[in-house]
Amino acid sequence: MSMKDLAPANVRGISPYVPGKPISETARELGLKEADILKMASNENPLGSSPKAIAALRGALETLAYYPDGAGFDLKAVISRVFGVKPENLVLGNGSNDVLELSARSFLTRDDSVVFARHAFMVYPLVTQAIGARSIEVPTRGFETDIDALVAAVRPDTKMLFVANPNNPTGTFTPWNDLRSLLERVSPRVLVVLDEAYGEYLPPELRSPALEWIARFPNLIVSRTLSKAYGLAGLRVGFAIAHPEVAELMNRVRQPFNVNQLAMVAACAALEDFDFIEKSRSVNAAGLVQIGAGVARLGLEVIPSRTNFITIRVGAAAKIYERLLAAGVIVRPLAGYGMPEHLRVTVGTAEQNARFLASLEAALAAP
Amino acid sequence: MSMKDLAPANVRGISPYVPGKPISETARELGLKEADILKMASNENPLGSSPKAIAALRGALETLAYYPDGAGFDLKAVISRVFGVKPENLVLGNGSNDVLELSARSFLTRDDSVVFARHAFMVYPLVTQAIGARSIEVPTRGFETDIDALVAAVRPDTKMLFVANPNNPTGTFTPWNDLRSLLERVSPRVLVVLDEAYGEYLPPELRSPALEWIARFPNLIVSRTLSKAYGLAGLRVGFAIAHPEVAELMNRVRQPFNVNQLAMVAACAALEDFDFIEKSRSVNAAGLVQIGAGVARLGLEVIPSRTNFITIRVGAAAKIYERLLAAGVIVRPLAGYGMPEHLRVTVGTAEQNARFLASLEAALAAP
Repeated sequence: MSMKDLAPANVRGISPYVPGKPISETARELGLKEADILKMASNENPLGSSPKAIAALRGALETLAYYPDGAGFDLKAVISRVFGVKPENLVLGNGSNDVLELSARSFLTRDDSVVFARHAFMVYPLVTQAIGARSIEVPTRGFETDIDALVAAVRPDTKMLFVANPNNPTGTFTPWNDLRSLLERVSPRVLVVLDEAYGEYLPPELRSPALEWIARFPNLIVSRTLSKAYGLAGLRVGFAIAHPEVAELMNRVRQPFNVNQLAMVAACAALEDFDFIEKSRSVNAAGLVQIGAGVARLGLEVIPSRTNFITIRVGAAAKIYERLLAAGVIVRPLAGYGMPEHLRVTVGTAEQNARFLASLEAALAAP
Repeated sequence: MSMKDLAPANVRGISPYVPGKPISETARELGLKEADILKMASNENPLGSSPKAIAALRGALETLAYYPDGAGFDLKAVISRVFGVKPENLVLGNGSNDVLELSARSFLTRDDSVVFARHAFMVYPLVTQAIGARSIEVPTRGFETDIDALVAAVRPDTKMLFVANPNNPTGTFTPWNDLRSLLERVSPRVLVVLDEAYGEYLPPELRSPALEWIARFPNLIVSRTLSKAYGLAGLRVGFAIAHPEVAELMNRVRQPFNVNQLAMVAACAALEDFDFIEKSRSVNAAGLVQIGAGVARLGLEVIPSRTNFITIRVGAAAKIYERLLAAGVIVRPLAGYGMPEHLRVTVGTAEQNARFLASLEAALAAP
């Protein structure tokens, strides 16, 4: 008997998430110095973390023998103030990955189905599979999320629908009116998980109105992360905003100390460091223009992006990916997302973007 | 329709874990200063964290915008060296709570049953309930884990058995030969999760031999934490040691970035800070004697402890708990563990233990 046989078939069928290649691993494998490697693979903030968050961390290293506050009182107070919600609307997560998983584990059984778009975040099918529920993957229009098709895909056994805006790994944006219309058209018995991991990168006129919808649509779960614009991916902190009854259920399933103490300390400082967020947004906007122009000069097509990354059709993507890697530039291949001709690259600083463009040009030109 | 109705019955039936009352919450509720409060409720290390871990953290605050290494290469290398295992035996967890939950989620379905002792860690029934599997709670002999009764409780549908040594919240120790006999007697189709959260507090002659058993018993999962003797509860890090096939399954279910970067950095330093562990052990041994003698003088009965806490029969425990709390001393009431006459107190420094004993004496004497 193999030990594998003891696991349920859905667990045996999980293909684990393949993250962006870490700098340390790349250095080991290629014999490069870590300092010479440029990682543009995981949509991390090239400006680092909020300096206010780092300062707060320095003052919080002496009390780590204590468990964190499992209720997250202080962090919930800050989120409530910044987002205009109440603490009872909130579920804190060990990154938004935890929020997405908690959504699934709080509501789904193996008898349910789950709807999401093709070319969407890999964690949606993963958390569905871990429960043994059925994934319904809905085609896109080009690379745009097809809201009508998502609505049409909902079946009587559908309990959850994941949709991201903007979407990863495509970078596309869906008008908010279309998402509102989705909520109006799906059954209130379908939990709609709206993933806003990249929301901070939207220009003011496109900012999400979704928090105002929660009162009318108690089946809406909005997911946010501090891993992108706030620059705290290493600490793992995200949160859900939902109807109090939904939040209360998710908090039952949540591990009591799922968010570590330093994540909460850093998040409290970062959420109100508006200067840092504004700077991150403007550096990113300039970088999108820079990479867009550079890639156009190379004759490549991109998917228009509203995020901190840009997805480029390079053709033989696996080959280009390997060549960039050998040059110390880590980007993200998307074959696992059904996009074998594309690479996803995180927007960096002006200097990083220039290095990426030069490396890409060389990779395309190599025999 | 209530949103609660959308959750499966097993989720609606979860009673969330009630953690030890945080200092910050106690200060808010009682109008006390945080510095005046003594928390002896969660078996945290009264010496704080390993100084080597804190020093390592100071050097790791500038790269938190990057995701952690999801494979945990560096931490697994240290654990492998210290415990004499291989990286493929390891599953890293967001605290050992995550390890216990991953064990359940990797193997259990709602068709299975799970065996564990009465008066054992609350997380065993919680993770079982979250899946909708059936909990089989086995009576103890006095407060000692009854190994024969655990073996006898295994049914054809039993897929997992949780057992802790030493046990929490009783502090009792089971001879390792009895645990080996348990492994010999239960079906290899039953995963045995051996929770060694308090293993570092055992004297050398009683240290766990369980890692040597994994080759012969591939159904054995050993769970360890850095939240107790290593003093890193706030950072959340634990790990499982298991057969490679078991570890591989658990790693599929694991969130890709479940352990944060600073937890890994601190754990790498703490695991090899043998001086700190030795000092923690000796301060604890002295404290067990001090509290034991003080409590005996008050005419109270304790459960003999091999851990960093001691469980005392105080009679009207809820009343004594409230009186201690009012005096700024937080201990753990155990009514939720079926022990309404007991309080569990974490061993502190000599000074903390003296304060606890004086406060307990006053609480017992109050009209």
